[in-house]
Amino acid sequence: MNKEVLDGLFRPKSVAVIGASATPGKIGYSVVESLNNGKYEGAIYPINLKADEILGHKAYPSILDLEGKVDLAVITVPAKLVLSAVEECGKAGVKGVSIITSGFGEVGDHETENAIVETAHRHGMRVLGPNIIGSLSNSGKLNASFAPMLPLPGDASLISQSGALLIALDAGTYLRGVGFDKLFSLGNMSDVDFADIIEWLDTDEHTKCTALYIEGLKDGRRFLEVSKKTNKPIIALKSGVSAHGAAAAASHTGSLAGAAKVYGAAFEQAGIIQATDLNNLFDLTQAFELQPPMKGDHLLIVTNGGGVGVLATDAAERFGIPLEFCPPELQAEMKNYMPEFGSAKNPVDITGGAGLEGYRKCIAFGLQQDWVHGLAVLYCETAVTNPDEIAQGILEAIREAKATPAGKDKPVVISFIGGTRCAKAMRYLIDNGIPAYDDPARAVNAIAGLRQFARLQEAKANAKDEKPFAADRNAALEIIKAARADGRDALTEIEAKQVFGIYGLDVTSTLLAKTEDEAVALANKVGYPIVMKIVSPDILHKSDAGGVKVNIKDDASTREWFAKIMANAKAYKADANIHGVAIQEMAPLGTEVILGSINDASFGPTVMFGLGGIFVEVLKDVTFAVTPVSKEQGLKMQSEIRGAKILAGARGEKPRDQEAMAETIARYSNMILDLQDEIKESDANPVMVYEAGNGLKVVDARIILKNK
Amino acid sequence: MNKEVLDGLFRPKSVAVIGASATPGKIGYSVVESLNNGKYEGAIYPINLKADEILGHKAYPSILDLEGKVDLAVITVPAKLVLSAVEECGKAGVKGVSIITSGFGEVGDHETENAIVETAHRHGMRVLGPNIIGSLSNSGKLNASFAPMLPLPGDASLISQSGALLIALDAGTYLRGVGFDKLFSLGNMSDVDFADIIEWLDTDEHTKCTALYIEGLKDGRRFLEVSKKTNKPIIALKSGVSAHGAAAAASHTGSLAGAAKVYGAAFEQAGIIQATDLNNLFDLTQAFELQPPMKGDHLLIVTNGGGVGVLATDAAERFGIPLEFCPPELQAEMKNYMPEFGSAKNPVDITGGAGLEGYRKCIAFGLQQDWVHGLAVLYCETAVTNPDEIAQGILEAIREAKATPAGKDKPVVISFIGGTRCAKAMRYLIDNGIPAYDDPARAVNAIAGLRQFARLQEAKANAKDEKPFAADRNAALEIIKAARADGRDALTEIEAKQVFGIYGLDVTSTLLAKTEDEAVALANKVGYPIVMKIVSPDILHKSDAGGVKVNIKDDASTREWFAKIMANAKAYKADANIHGVAIQEMAPLGTEVILGSINDASFGPTVMFGLGGIFVEVLKDVTFAVTPVSKEQGLKMQSEIRGAKILAGARGEKPRDQEAMAETIARYSNMILDLQDEIKESDANPVMVYEAGNGLKVVDARIILKNK
Repeated sequence: MNKEVLDGLFRPKSVAVIGASATPGKIGYSVVESLNNGKYEGAIYPINLKADEILGHKAYPSILDLEGKVDLAVITVPAKLVLSAVEECGKAGVKGVSIITSGFGEVGDHETENAIVETAHRHGMRVLGPNIIGSLSNSGKLNASFAPMLPLPGDASLISQSGALLIALDAGTYLRGVGFDKLFSLGNMSDVDFADIIEWLDTDEHTKCTALYIEGLKDGRRFLEVSKKTNKPIIALKSGVSAHGAAAAASHTGSLAGAAKVYGAAFEQAGIIQATDLNNLFDLTQAFELQPPMKGDHLLIVTNGGGVGVLATDAAERFGIPLEFCPPELQAEMKNYMPEFGSAKNPVDITGGAGLEGYRKCIAFGLQQDWVHGLAVLYCETAVTNPDEIAQGILEAIREAKATPAGKDKPVVISFIGGTRCAKAMRYLIDNGIPAYDDPARAVNAIAGLRQFARLQEAKANAKDEKPFAADRNAALEIIKAARADGRDALTEIEAKQVFGIYGLDVTSTLLAKTEDEAVALANKVGYPIVMKIVSPDILHKSDAGGVKVNIKDDASTREWFAKIMANAKAYKADANIHGVAIQEMAPLGTEVILGSINDASFGPTVMFGLGGIFVEVLKDVTFAVTPVSKEQGLKMQSEIRGAKILAGARGEKPRDQEAMAETIARYSNMILDLQDEIKESDANPVMVYEAGNGLKVVDARIILKNK
Repeated sequence: MNKEVLDGLFRPKSVAVIGASATPGKIGYSVVESLNNGKYEGAIYPINLKADEILGHKAYPSILDLEGKVDLAVITVPAKLVLSAVEECGKAGVKGVSIITSGFGEVGDHETENAIVETAHRHGMRVLGPNIIGSLSNSGKLNASFAPMLPLPGDASLISQSGALLIALDAGTYLRGVGFDKLFSLGNMSDVDFADIIEWLDTDEHTKCTALYIEGLKDGRRFLEVSKKTNKPIIALKSGVSAHGAAAAASHTGSLAGAAKVYGAAFEQAGIIQATDLNNLFDLTQAFELQPPMKGDHLLIVTNGGGVGVLATDAAERFGIPLEFCPPELQAEMKNYMPEFGSAKNPVDITGGAGLEGYRKCIAFGLQQDWVHGLAVLYCETAVTNPDEIAQGILEAIREAKATPAGKDKPVVISFIGGTRCAKAMRYLIDNGIPAYDDPARAVNAIAGLRQFARLQEAKANAKDEKPFAADRNAALEIIKAARADGRDALTEIEAKQVFGIYGLDVTSTLLAKTEDEAVALANKVGYPIVMKIVSPDILHKSDAGGVKVNIKDDASTREWFAKIMANAKAYKADANIHGVAIQEMAPLGTEVILGSINDASFGPTVMFGLGGIFVEVLKDVTFAVTPVSKEQGLKMQSEIRGAKILAGARGEKPRDQEAMAETIARYSNMILDLQDEIKESDANPVMVYEAGNGLKVVDARIILKNK
């Protein structure tokens, strides 16, 4: 990151508007108006060939007249003039250009877009856009966009790939009471992308957390790296997660939407909290900008209504923080703060008759207990309580508890159910730093996000810096080179197993016999029983060709089947290029799993793991992780699939060798990452996993090469 | 249903308030005040020993002074006085009592509660409550409760088991803009329950749809029957669906929360739409009171922002109405209504530059197309459009289209994303009959509810009136009686199979041999190969006892194993009561499935179906249906499990005999329903299902009897 350049782009000391206009309704007018309305304190330079002055600012015919004076140039001229405008900006020493104009990559003109970026880079500039609304900053008093207003002030920032959404959400910040310091419109992401801004925001004292609206990432790996590094919470809404939605997204921004599962896995690996919809994005952002992460699983719910207590309890389970009953000593104490028919179990139901004192005492006491890691306060409007008073009292109790060492770092969320008085009371709470929601499920969902973030941070902190298996990369490349020289885009099973072996994967010994005598010699080397398989790049479905025989137990049978398999293969395809017959160690039966790899369009080499057979074929019960995948993550992947119990030891069976499996996943990940320029897809299918301590065997291996 | 009595309770011509008070703050004051504020037009009779007049109404010392004059008596006196008050109401000819007072079943005093109901019934009265807020009706100008106001008027009704929630939601109707005609607080449901009110609302011209907040049902079967009969949509939020939530609900209302899966199945069977949280309950209610069901799968989305279009598309898939592209001729026409870079595919993206005309034309045209079954209109606030104007224009276009025969019966939902102007515009749309939501996902979720309702109505309409298998019930009862006489609470496998057989289930022939000779004779009757199993009520784990031998192929082996099995059993448990050895037909291997039954606390006999082995043991991949289950529903159950493809024919295999399986489910349902007074639990496990046309075999059967 060139911080100085990005500072110029996002925290400019001066702004030029190229294409500034004195005609209301034009974008070039709106941007100058926005800068004025935002009370921007730096210099504003309208650039317009004819005008002397625009909206109170002296206008200049060319940016070249302002050499060395401009940090940010906002470009609003028609598409065909943009490239030359950028060139001029470069010459004038502008630090960054923000191109509002559309009509480039999103309508197929990638050529001009690329030329713009090249030109900018040549001059050391960065490009935001094109096809954007602009960028906005409350702390910078900077509305460098055609959005009519700066957002409600707050401590979050928003980066949106959709301009229309950004402008609507900008207005929505006031309606929802969720404040932001900065808004960024990314548009075509020709240059500056999510990763650049996330990295830059890490240094921004006005941003506590970042909300993202993502349609598709161009450089997913860099996005992950940057997101992993920042300690500020990131909440992401990824659109286009349905099949049809992905198609719609692609037509919309010209970027490819990755598979929903891969995105989900990648977000988790990077410590990003994924939002489900717009409201959820706002809800989580509000929680993260106002409250600390929740550093344990014990959520305490205090309510005046049993019904909403139960709804919150259901939501807690649904969102991954199932409730537990309070320890007896906590219950005993809280029982003193409520009428006889209340409940201190959790949810703590102070009952409708309790009024403010019950809330105050349970909150102040509860939040200071070591057992409690987070608090949700629920209130049902009643005929005898005043929401304003309740809100005020709750706030005081929270502040009192948070002022103590035991209560300080614990998150609190609130839900008031009722009418306009409740809405007003909630806004009061929000304005005073307590997230408040109109449905207990929303409140619980938000605090569950705070819990999830703390979990992901813990996982990050505990991650071990493991050295991957030391593989002889050149040896692997030689095998691949030979296959390519042979005109092939896939390795044979024997070659693939050699590559797997180089990366430390435990494959069944598989040797190539070209003659009967060789077959017998190799069979004795491998050890009976063996499997024999035809080896031919021209025969993909070996069984159909009569090219496979399992469980061969002696030399005579080896001879017999060598001849048969060769004959079958020739009969199946007369002109097939036959390498010979593979003599393979026969792996004992175990639990069948499958490893696979894809080169994801957004995230690059990605590992898939699942149980074999019906689990993968019928249930699609697989999980993904973007490389590199550590052994630790390999263990986690095994626990993520629905059939996890099979590996952990179901139906009275002993656990499988999950340690060996995890090590295998890590090595496999290392292989496809190390050879990412060569391997398009690969799989190990099946892998037989044995009882804990007994390891595993990769029985079949496949590597498909990238087109070169 | 005694309609006249319920009319008296819910549409009274006169109301007495027993325990009316002149002291503000007392419930007896609030209720009279509520009646006044609601502008109730019938007679109001405060009952108070000492007062002459309360809040403008002449007071009476006793209800007995008003014999024959009172339809509804609202009781607010202390708990210990309620029973005698009810007795007096009865004597005075009151039609229904609404008992606001708490302190009965919910705190353990079931005795008084039962006595109250008995007393009421003796006098031909019905009881609402106790432990309630009361009931409210806009059309009746009746606020017979201590809730401070009637709800925002509308065409829905709400029945809530939680009083606190009712009062809060009452106020919330104004905040959310969702109108209701009637609100009912059910409290302890000592007498009048959900079913009574649903049935009564079916005759209420002011109620178009009914929202329920359910904690636990006491008579689930009647609830289902009544819900099935009504054609008015029902939307239900069931709380206590999590394990911990169920515990909290139980402590709250004293009613048992059923298993979440059983509730889900029951709701679907009854045509009820299940809400996920409070907002969703309101969202769906708004959709149902304002719009017709969606009678087909084609949702058209019209948007001015690509981003929200994609979010809506994702939501459509998530909520069960995946989007399809419009047919080419529709696309061609709509393309005329938008700028060049718009998209008419679906979502129809008229782009941010389009303005009102694009919306008007696409809506008016789209809604009249036969291909389109429902419409979602999305709007992102922009710098150049006015949400008010857009809302007005959209409304006109919808009205225009809905005035045509082709557009008339199609639902429309709307989502505006933006600031306070959008919120105001949405309220305008709602007030004019168009549901509007602040998030595209919410709008799509609501219209998906309208689609789901139409689907369930279709299923209801298409349901065949099938006669169950004619079983000899008495023969089954004889077998059960004999087992009971034997002091047992479970049938042996042979007995259970006899009962299964009586109900037309295809069990493996299983005969009891007491001697070696008998064993050989029966083996020849059944036909080799056979399975031999010990039959003893004292040996549950037959295999552990060395009591099972499969694949016996001849007489000699039969003799040998009869002796061995008997010896093993005696060695395993010397004092076991041994009936002999079962000689059983050996069923060929097939796809293993499992049938089971429970007697659900809320819904009674309920069938469970799933695939055997890991599917049930590891994945818990089972589905439920409340009896009676038709053959049609039996087919549906097979499609509901995650492993459905296994039965439909996965991995190149032929489909299993799903017809036979469905018939078996229906017969099994008939058995457990017919014998519900005797059977506590039962299962058929495994059932081997063969290729289509080849039927199935119940290999093992188990019946556990109810304690008597």
